Amino acid sequence: MGLNVTQKLIQDHLTSGEMVPGKEIGLKIDQTLTQDATGTMVMLELEAMGLDKAKTEASAQYVDHNLIQDDYRNPDDHLFLRSAANRFGLYYSRPGNGVSHPVHMQRLSRPGRTMLGSDSHTCANGCMGMLAMGAGGIDVAMAIAGEPYYINMPQVWGVRLTGELPDWVSAKDVILEMLRRHDVKGGVGKVIEYYGPGLEKLSAMDRHVIANMGAELGATTTVFPSDEEVKRFMKTQGREDEWQELVADEDATYDIDEEINLSELEPLIALPSSPGNVVPVTEVEGEPIYQAYIGSSANPGYRDFAMAAEIVKGKSVAEGLSFDINPSSRQMLTKLVDNGHIASLLSAGGRLHQAGCNGCIGMGQAPATGRNSLRTTPRNFPGRSGTKEDSVFLVSPETAAASALTGKITDPRKLDMDYPQIDEPENKNLKQEQSLLEAPFESKQDPVELEKGPNISSIPEIEPIKDEFEVPILLKMGDNISTDEILAGGSRVLPYRSNLQQIATFSFEIVDESYYDRAMEIKDQGGHAVVGGFNYGQGSSREHAALAPRFLGLQAALVKDFARIHLQNLINFGILPVTFKNEEDYDKLEEGDILQFENVRETIRKQKDFNVKVKGKDLTIPVSHALTERHMDILLEGGVINWVKKRQSKMA
Amino acid sequence: MGLNVTQKLIQDHLTSGEMVPGKEIGLKIDQTLTQDATGTMVMLELEAMGLDKAKTEASAQYVDHNLIQDDYRNPDDHLFLRSAANRFGLYYSRPGNGVSHPVHMQRLSRPGRTMLGSDSHTCANGCMGMLAMGAGGIDVAMAIAGEPYYINMPQVWGVRLTGELPDWVSAKDVILEMLRRHDVKGGVGKVIEYYGPGLEKLSAMDRHVIANMGAELGATTTVFPSDEEVKRFMKTQGREDEWQELVADEDATYDIDEEINLSELEPLIALPSSPGNVVPVTEVEGEPIYQAYIGSSANPGYRDFAMAAEIVKGKSVAEGLSFDINPSSRQMLTKLVDNGHIASLLSAGGRLHQAGCNGCIGMGQAPATGRNSLRTTPRNFPGRSGTKEDSVFLVSPETAAASALTGKITDPRKLDMDYPQIDEPENKNLKQEQSLLEAPFESKQDPVELEKGPNISSIPEIEPIKDEFEVPILLKMGDNISTDEILAGGSRVLPYRSNLQQIATFSFEIVDESYYDRAMEIKDQGGHAVVGGFNYGQGSSREHAALAPRFLGLQAALVKDFARIHLQNLINFGILPVTFKNEEDYDKLEEGDILQFENVRETIRKQKDFNVKVKGKDLTIPVSHALTERHMDILLEGGVINWVKKRQSKMA
Repeated sequence: MGLNVTQKLIQDHLTSGEMVPGKEIGLKIDQTLTQDATGTMVMLELEAMGLDKAKTEASAQYVDHNLIQDDYRNPDDHLFLRSAANRFGLYYSRPGNGVSHPVHMQRLSRPGRTMLGSDSHTCANGCMGMLAMGAGGIDVAMAIAGEPYYINMPQVWGVRLTGELPDWVSAKDVILEMLRRHDVKGGVGKVIEYYGPGLEKLSAMDRHVIANMGAELGATTTVFPSDEEVKRFMKTQGREDEWQELVADEDATYDIDEEINLSELEPLIALPSSPGNVVPVTEVEGEPIYQAYIGSSANPGYRDFAMAAEIVKGKSVAEGLSFDINPSSRQMLTKLVDNGHIASLLSAGGRLHQAGCNGCIGMGQAPATGRNSLRTTPRNFPGRSGTKEDSVFLVSPETAAASALTGKITDPRKLDMDYPQIDEPENKNLKQEQSLLEAPFESKQDPVELEKGPNISSIPEIEPIKDEFEVPILLKMGDNISTDEILAGGSRVLPYRSNLQQIATFSFEIVDESYYDRAMEIKDQGGHAVVGGFNYGQGSSREHAALAPRFLGLQAALVKDFARIHLQNLINFGILPVTFKNEEDYDKLEEGDILQFENVRETIRKQKDFNVKVKGKDLTIPVSHALTERHMDILLEGGVINWVKKRQSKMA
Repeated sequence: MGLNVTQKLIQDHLTSGEMVPGKEIGLKIDQTLTQDATGTMVMLELEAMGLDKAKTEASAQYVDHNLIQDDYRNPDDHLFLRSAANRFGLYYSRPGNGVSHPVHMQRLSRPGRTMLGSDSHTCANGCMGMLAMGAGGIDVAMAIAGEPYYINMPQVWGVRLTGELPDWVSAKDVILEMLRRHDVKGGVGKVIEYYGPGLEKLSAMDRHVIANMGAELGATTTVFPSDEEVKRFMKTQGREDEWQELVADEDATYDIDEEINLSELEPLIALPSSPGNVVPVTEVEGEPIYQAYIGSSANPGYRDFAMAAEIVKGKSVAEGLSFDINPSSRQMLTKLVDNGHIASLLSAGGRLHQAGCNGCIGMGQAPATGRNSLRTTPRNFPGRSGTKEDSVFLVSPETAAASALTGKITDPRKLDMDYPQIDEPENKNLKQEQSLLEAPFESKQDPVELEKGPNISSIPEIEPIKDEFEVPILLKMGDNISTDEILAGGSRVLPYRSNLQQIATFSFEIVDESYYDRAMEIKDQGGHAVVGGFNYGQGSSREHAALAPRFLGLQAALVKDFARIHLQNLINFGILPVTFKNEEDYDKLEEGDILQFENVRETIRKQKDFNVKVKGKDLTIPVSHALTERHMDILLEGGVINWVKKRQSKMA
């Protein structure tokens, strides 16, 4: 039976498991992508693992998130990341080069390869015939160290594109149509694979738009074939020789079948505050707006900016309107400058920002209170813009630019002009610009010294779980404790993301302010345990919610059940996760009770259920674990960092 | 006897006093400039004054400081300022238009006019044959309301320029030479007037560079003649008809005489952390740098950016170096884009930021810990960059660009290239861009509603001092209390600059945390007094340090002596400022003592000295005041807002 592109990519990289939807498979990872917000911790993890050089074909560290330098912390991070790239043999993309996804596409993407990135929009490079997936930082660190990545084999959802987009309708409207049909959970457990005759007129960058926002459907990733258009794109980047064809076999089939006739699409808009909240633009025409915003990895193409420029050329945007231009890459920006489009945008009233993520991730360009903002960005979750009660709409560049002129939501088809034809020019300064993505250095110094500003500190060594240990219950919590309660996000805490000692001071602060002091007091006497109810560790996937309490001595978490990702994080950082065999035992425990774990290392290998005694009380609590063999290997080593470290030293 | 340009400007605008250095004079103000950081309070003051329309020839509200929108507050401010411009008949310059000083020069400057601006670099427009001075917000509010501005007649310091700048030496080196000679207090009480044959080859924008940093010499302002070069500049702006000649009489003299032979200058550099710390670049050559930064109102010209672009064209800046390009105005940026210079800067590795003040005022682009930053900005005071222990050097664009290529401090004369010749092109899109400085509107609504976001609140009415009042001493403080101790600056407090109710909660917090609660408790029972030692209210000129305590009920400040600007601010906001006649009486008072003021309104008019009784104690404290007639008028009206309000209603 023939294979589709997704299946070919997986088959080529399978290290374990079978290609049966729902079953765990291991995948060899060829490339990685880290950005600065998540990358500093990844680099600290690589340091702790004792990695010598990246084992991947190409790994790149981008600086695109934290570009606002209002004190020393962000610039210090940039220098640290550069030194880490140097030490571990990664590409380093300096601030100003642009957003990781389009820059990676321009410089390093390769058809037929797998990629793991510590950014949820890593899937964007699926436009290049790659299997590109977003993951947690430690997963990417492991991939850099040469470890496979494990997922459950996804279903492959084939979307056949037919017809041709009408004037004033563009790639953004295609992915908005997918979101209109399937909403933000429609893609969970699936890889979306686009194919069919409709692809012919979609440029590689148009496909990037569609692949990028596959993340908003919740998909594992999105895949496009590597065809003549991908070849053309790689030629514009001087990398034609790295192209290879990758298309579905003629008799390929899909687990799910769908069709979109591009000819039937019209301008669409996602209303506040979900990307899945999609209606035709005509339904909300005339709503006044405060802001129109062009850019982000969800519309990074030359044509996206040039289109907006052609629409506003020789005119002025509405008075009082903020017309924000966020270039996505240095290459695009330079070409747009060269060809007069930036001048058109500026003269019309545009505010030209540095190439990077910027407002897309709430780093600047927040809208005014109670005002509508029209954006070409991928997400409009509440508050993501930086303004708590915001009102953000997602649209194509055509709709954003048309609305900028009128000051209200406007269907671009109603503009009194012909649809601009955009011809993308050649990359004149390619060689000079390429040098700005610094290639892995030949190190003169070995190992290269990591440049750590005062807010960056190494991850301390984690001791493996002892065979016998007694730990007091320091916190007894209820149901649905989220990772935000375990370790808050936000501007008070996040600046310490690379400083475990500092960020740990915020642990469980929302639950019990005395936790930190109490934990520190007994940290060197064997640590402690926590007890929780159902759905423990729900919410954000942040790893710090496991790492920080572990640093404070957390040895075991005993709860009614775990949220999936936090469970993985506990294992990854060497904390024993167990559940009550009898939920009613939860009521028998109280803070201060001392749990006695015996013969742990052997017991968990042998059996799923075992007993924990409560010291000084006539009480035994039966508990269970759900650890796989791989989990146990990791846990008993004291977490993935130790586990990989050992493997690295064996390999050396 | 002939007059110099400064004397002509003053004579033409004199409303009171005599032109004798050191004597108070009143000046009619033709134009005003407010920026967003100080402007929101000015607009609230105009609202409180009940102003109908600005009485000036031209007043403009710029948005250039607070461009980082990481929440609703800055964009709300922008909308508020626009609505206020609309209500009061001011020009409004939207975010992205650029820094107030060059934009004002391009659009509104007029030779022969006076200007007051709530920004210390307002003096930059002295390059246009104007008397342009920086002042406090309330002074500018009063000027907008048509009131004269009072200063002591300055000495006029004539600087005769001869010769011609050598290659690789430019206007920045001229003002650095002045700072090398005279340091940061050399200009206090003086207007610096440049003249002589050396002017011929200094463009209007070069003169802007020199006038701008007159602020760093502490000068009242800097004045250049309005000559053929100024005419040429105005022609490029389509405003030739607004030009008038203004040059010194042939027999004019100066209070102080100085000469600079431009031919003898070399590239100079101000070392950390004072603009007065100037040495030749050759003395520090080879020092490694982290950052090279082009832009700000201290190097805003087309040639400044084009020069940097020509130097780095076709090359790449040093690896790991942050090459920050901060365009100063939309007009310049558009021309630089049109003529390929921005492309050169980008391709060499430049980070192109939005037009505005940005890093010059610590709003982004902060350097990394312990790293050297080379900047064309006007100031390198410690921490101004945003990084507390920074290391900022001030240089010309030539030196900054040369150093960007090498990664260390480099004398640009040692570059292996000819000195680039820069021809400034015409302004192609002048008309379209001009519309982006919104002219005062014909209001449809009267008065126009002020758009106040949740963080902007009107100034409450201030009640005039009563004739008799008893107030407890809420705080007794020592010597040298600064306005920072009265009301802190910084990122915790400053966001509430337009929210008196909120910012007042920080009053005297550093001195005594209980002050706010205790003041609020008795606010409606007549308020309170404070007692201080010598030099009370030193430091920053911030008006909030008077307004906020007044809002909390402060009626009188009794101290050993006052710092000059804070004394003025106390009067401006209706607080009675008195000093101990006998310093030793300070020791007799304690917190909680109740001061009894009797027959105040008549007494202070009649005599400089009077007595204050301490209730329930056998104690009388002789006190003095140093109020002029004008001060008394203002104070007894409850401050300038009430005082102007009354005059406005009389005029209406």
